[in-house]
Amino acid sequence: MKKLILVFSLLAPAAILAQEALHTLPPSKSPVVNNDSTVSLTLFAPKASAVSAHGFGNAPVVLERSADGNWSATTPKLLPDLYTYTFDVDGMRIIDPSNVYTARDIASLFSEVIVPGGEADYYSVRDVPHGSVIKDWYDSPSLGQKRRITVYLPAEYSLNPDKRYPVFYLLHGMGGDEDAWNELGRASVILDNLIAEGKAEPMIVVMPNGNAAMKGAPGYSELGMYEPRGEHSVSPQGSFENAFTDIVSYVDSNYRTLPDKAGRAIAGLSMGGGHSWRISMMYPDMFDYVGLFSAAVRWNGNGVDDSPEAVAEVENSLRRQMQNPPQLYWIGIGKDDFLYPINADYRNMLDRLNINYLYEESDGGHTWSNWRHYLVHFTPLLFRR
Amino acid sequence: MKKLILVFSLLAPAAILAQEALHTLPPSKSPVVNNDSTVSLTLFAPKASAVSAHGFGNAPVVLERSADGNWSATTPKLLPDLYTYTFDVDGMRIIDPSNVYTARDIASLFSEVIVPGGEADYYSVRDVPHGSVIKDWYDSPSLGQKRRITVYLPAEYSLNPDKRYPVFYLLHGMGGDEDAWNELGRASVILDNLIAEGKAEPMIVVMPNGNAAMKGAPGYSELGMYEPRGEHSVSPQGSFENAFTDIVSYVDSNYRTLPDKAGRAIAGLSMGGGHSWRISMMYPDMFDYVGLFSAAVRWNGNGVDDSPEAVAEVENSLRRQMQNPPQLYWIGIGKDDFLYPINADYRNMLDRLNINYLYEESDGGHTWSNWRHYLVHFTPLLFRR
Repeated sequence: MKKLILVFSLLAPAAILAQEALHTLPPSKSPVVNNDSTVSLTLFAPKASAVSAHGFGNAPVVLERSADGNWSATTPKLLPDLYTYTFDVDGMRIIDPSNVYTARDIASLFSEVIVPGGEADYYSVRDVPHGSVIKDWYDSPSLGQKRRITVYLPAEYSLNPDKRYPVFYLLHGMGGDEDAWNELGRASVILDNLIAEGKAEPMIVVMPNGNAAMKGAPGYSELGMYEPRGEHSVSPQGSFENAFTDIVSYVDSNYRTLPDKAGRAIAGLSMGGGHSWRISMMYPDMFDYVGLFSAAVRWNGNGVDDSPEAVAEVENSLRRQMQNPPQLYWIGIGKDDFLYPINADYRNMLDRLNINYLYEESDGGHTWSNWRHYLVHFTPLLFRR
Repeated sequence: MKKLILVFSLLAPAAILAQEALHTLPPSKSPVVNNDSTVSLTLFAPKASAVSAHGFGNAPVVLERSADGNWSATTPKLLPDLYTYTFDVDGMRIIDPSNVYTARDIASLFSEVIVPGGEADYYSVRDVPHGSVIKDWYDSPSLGQKRRITVYLPAEYSLNPDKRYPVFYLLHGMGGDEDAWNELGRASVILDNLIAEGKAEPMIVVMPNGNAAMKGAPGYSELGMYEPRGEHSVSPQGSFENAFTDIVSYVDSNYRTLPDKAGRAIAGLSMGGGHSWRISMMYPDMFDYVGLFSAAVRWNGNGVDDSPEAVAEVENSLRRQMQNPPQLYWIGIGKDDFLYPINADYRNMLDRLNINYLYEESDGGHTWSNWRHYLVHFTPLLFRR
């Protein structure tokens, strides 16, 4: 067996590490986050004629070729944030082959990199207690489906078997799914960090799939590994909102919740902001905290209906909700968001009805950058009794 | 507000779907699984001079260019399986930009596609009840860490609040982590399908991180989005095995388990097969089912020590274990696996000691293709009392 020892010593490190095949790492190290908040990118593409990177601001970052076949560039100084980027290689759009950290946004993959500092430090995993993330399936009798759902439990949950926790329902936008807030939105990382700093109460966060026609994210239903397209996520107007109590029933039955208005928050981005807006009106006794992030408020599937009947319906629903108002009604929108006008119009309506709300107007548009910010700002305001 | 309706109608479908940016889908649809078990691949690379696909057998699949800048090819007829593949574009290794389904194997990303039929149908999500997948953190006092762990609960778990379940501990190879078995190994999908067919008992599956030096998979610890390398997963020989009871204690405390030998199985691949081998000897009263998949049996970190002292130690440990033997001792290995010789040698030892085992010799080598097969074959044998 002496021979075997020798063979093993020679082969084992490479071969056991390799498992499926003998992978070699790409020859270039990319991305590198520099101390001056720039990011250096490198791509090995010996025969390419033009390479650029997209995702670091509006202008592409043009890479330059060196003699060894590597293309490289350093971005301008960047604001702290999580950036999603791709390369364009002679018209072919690819993720960074040297970066294993990726996120899917609807039908596209992106490479990810975090420029630290400021609020972006809430997006980085720190040496703090980590909560659990559960990919669960709840029964929705209203929709006649079992549906996939993401549930975050705070780190202390399993240590306090008799304690009950408030629940924050966090809804994604059109084209997203039950994975979106936890991946692109970094929700569990943000919650871990806020809770560890004492800036947020320990809470359960529930991230359902807001497209009533989908059982789960692409790849997690019997549709298999299909090509995601917008039409997969179109569902009849109101169908998710009308089935929402199925989620609340499931969560209150399966987790140690505080099952009352004071123990529930709801917020969402874009379409999910519209859902949060409508659901909080439909069930005025259910949520004490409402967050509208770049919200498609008053959107009926085609646009905003400004007929007198539609306006009266909304105003009556709001008046009914505000007879016993939530403790917090929070609105956030970017100055450049294409939904800015309908949000401005909606705030006028709230002002006219003397309804109180907190308002944050940020730079930028309809972006995950803003939605992560709003999550960091909104969550500390919840459940402070 | 009429104007707003119009703007919204024009912009909303594209803009709300887009969220972070106006993504356009790649112009080519790829991969396409054909009815004859071939896979058609397409890549838009208008200026490339040579494109090939890797992962469909030993030979690369050469793509050919058409006038519109698309490269395409159809693979030979393939056996049913989950395939992981990449493109080589003029020496640059990339995943398929049109395929959002990816898996990370250590430091490399791959695109995924399933050719259905046979056992591969266990790898596809079907319209059956789905279990929950939990990314949890357990306390390991022995290692002085909280460590990330994947736990699968069968679909019926939440419906039977008084029922207790057997536990299958499933261990990955060197370079893998607590995500490997569930992603590359499709463990939760395989379990859902086996249980739905009545071929496996409803059971809890626990997939820990077998590298004692790692708290969690790349990106889930405070090391952040570092570049995974083999050295991150090197830990002192025996450190994981010696700390294993921390996992069992955590699982028995936090889930409704059958906490006895008859209710526990352990299996692993490669390094994890070595772990399963050693742990089942260390704790002969703990596991009634032992599975060694392409296992690094008798590996001491450098190779196999065939000194008389080392052989005697192993034989004594085995004799001790077999005084009250497990119900099942299962060995699987590929004919071309580089660990085949040490497994053959180990089987000789078992024969010499009159130790019973079930043995499966498959085609192929040290691959996830084999490990998924072994999981489909081994799991139905568990907990059949």
